[in-house]
Amino acid sequence: MIIDTHCHYTTEPAALHTFRDKQLAGMADPARKPAPLDVPDDVVKKSVEPQLALQRERGIDLAIFSPRASGMAHHVGPEAVSREWTTIANNLIHRVCTLWSENFVGVGQLPQSPGVAPSNCIPELERIVNELGFVGVNLNPDPTGGRWTDPPLTDRYWYPLYEKLCELDVPATIHVSSSCNRNFHHTGAHYINADTTAFMQLIQGDLFADFPTLRFIIPHGGGAVPFHWGRYRGLCLSLKKRELLEHVMHNVFFDTCVYHLPGIELLAKVVPVDNILFATEMLGAVPGIDPETGQYFDDTRRYIDAVGFLTAEDRHKIFETNARRVFPRLAARVGAHA
Amino acid sequence: MIIDTHCHYTTEPAALHTFRDKQLAGMADPARKPAPLDVPDDVVKKSVEPQLALQRERGIDLAIFSPRASGMAHHVGPEAVSREWTTIANNLIHRVCTLWSENFVGVGQLPQSPGVAPSNCIPELERIVNELGFVGVNLNPDPTGGRWTDPPLTDRYWYPLYEKLCELDVPATIHVSSSCNRNFHHTGAHYINADTTAFMQLIQGDLFADFPTLRFIIPHGGGAVPFHWGRYRGLCLSLKKRELLEHVMHNVFFDTCVYHLPGIELLAKVVPVDNILFATEMLGAVPGIDPETGQYFDDTRRYIDAVGFLTAEDRHKIFETNARRVFPRLAARVGAHA
Repeated sequence: MIIDTHCHYTTEPAALHTFRDKQLAGMADPARKPAPLDVPDDVVKKSVEPQLALQRERGIDLAIFSPRASGMAHHVGPEAVSREWTTIANNLIHRVCTLWSENFVGVGQLPQSPGVAPSNCIPELERIVNELGFVGVNLNPDPTGGRWTDPPLTDRYWYPLYEKLCELDVPATIHVSSSCNRNFHHTGAHYINADTTAFMQLIQGDLFADFPTLRFIIPHGGGAVPFHWGRYRGLCLSLKKRELLEHVMHNVFFDTCVYHLPGIELLAKVVPVDNILFATEMLGAVPGIDPETGQYFDDTRRYIDAVGFLTAEDRHKIFETNARRVFPRLAARVGAHA
Repeated sequence: MIIDTHCHYTTEPAALHTFRDKQLAGMADPARKPAPLDVPDDVVKKSVEPQLALQRERGIDLAIFSPRASGMAHHVGPEAVSREWTTIANNLIHRVCTLWSENFVGVGQLPQSPGVAPSNCIPELERIVNELGFVGVNLNPDPTGGRWTDPPLTDRYWYPLYEKLCELDVPATIHVSSSCNRNFHHTGAHYINADTTAFMQLIQGDLFADFPTLRFIIPHGGGAVPFHWGRYRGLCLSLKKRELLEHVMHNVFFDTCVYHLPGIELLAKVVPVDNILFATEMLGAVPGIDPETGQYFDDTRRYIDAVGFLTAEDRHKIFETNARRVFPRLAARVGAHA
């Protein structure tokens, strides 16, 4: 089985965007507030066909599927707006995962809001896991959208949410949203910077001493971390922590959203294979075909298949068994490992 | 000849730190303002002996030497404080480069200040190049110290400074300073994020169409860029720019401050060898000895020597001739290439 652990719903029905426009317009003029979102099953079903076609083409069996990352936009509007929008976005993911139950499993967004304690997210986290059957959640380490004025991930500010993640036994993927800072292109700078920033925060802190079962996925190959593995090992030691592997890598996993073979080779060379999860970030984070290879940049399965030093057992871990370990609730959705 | 293009003066005389304390204390109480800095030649000379010893040990002939990067702290105090501090810091670099003229060549900091037009830096830039013989300058893409509220590097806000850099034919190393944002560890997140951010800004813009001779060094191996080379190539194309190499790599150079062999291998594999400059970031950005190799993390020459696919000609470019091309004023200081 091949499990793509990082996919976003970027082919949403037009009605969702219309809803969002009206929701935000309603902040200025309550008369423009939207009616409840009403999308027929066939429209939801059809909307993910491009994704399904690519999955079939690439031999991917299952997508761990969450709302468009840039769409979360926790910095837009007050908490009540974030909460309404989050509920809508998660419910739509749930419908995809119900209509295409063999192909999609849900991961949710949270109703985060700048300056609002993350404990505000606990009811929605419980709902998506217990009622909607989601297996994980995207956690935005910078709900300000590129201003970075909220506390780091190791601050006790976040602890109530971590307690609930541990209790529910679901991992969090550390994933920012769109950027309202013109210095940071969202997919080209903000996403990668956030990955790097989060990892360094984990090095500086001792979060996993307090939460030994907490699991974080740092997407996009872990940002800059594998390329600077020596820097992070050195900084970890100079901060008088244990070796990097001992200090954070029992709890942190990187995905394979790295869009060229030499990058994937580096990832597989420096990061233990047990810490690597197959993912593509489909659809569209980095669209298009690489003129050098004639293949899609985001067809990351090709790169993994091409890494000569990986064994069949290594690939099996990357494609399936690591995901089952990090997302234990997957078993209830797609059956136990054969 | 082996030229280390990225070294900072991190073994400054204690008197410099005392001066800085008094300078900042003087903002609150003018009675505490410092007397002019007065450090005897032998103290300046002795202060860089640890650096010289490591250079000798590693077979490095020349260091391109600039003030401590985290010490620039452009976000601390108003512009007049930044200006006074910058003058002091640059003058001290000049003294090192005069007392040890065979071993050190100067690169300066600029009197940047948040919200102040970069054209304010032109007089100091002219002074350090024309009067002190410096061959380049460190340009802080975020003088706010991690708040990122000034315009991106492609904004016309920066153009007067770029005009002067081109006129003087000196490159700028894009280098942030310390972080006043608790989310960003300075050497572990802020530096690397700034490198990645600057590169993505250059992809989004068309700066080198306006300044075809402008040269930027993006240090620390280019941040996350080589690891995500496919992402940046894909984003460049999806933004309807030319291929990445054509769009920015005539004007952008990465250094080798990457502290493990697999990282250096990746850098040399994906980035053209003409765009790579040898550097160590000595002393102290990532201190200590790697317990796996028994060698210093920042002994980057070892990694370059160990990359099997580099030819002698490639290494000669990385160690010397690329630096001479990027810093043409080096020739006046250390003679033409043999």
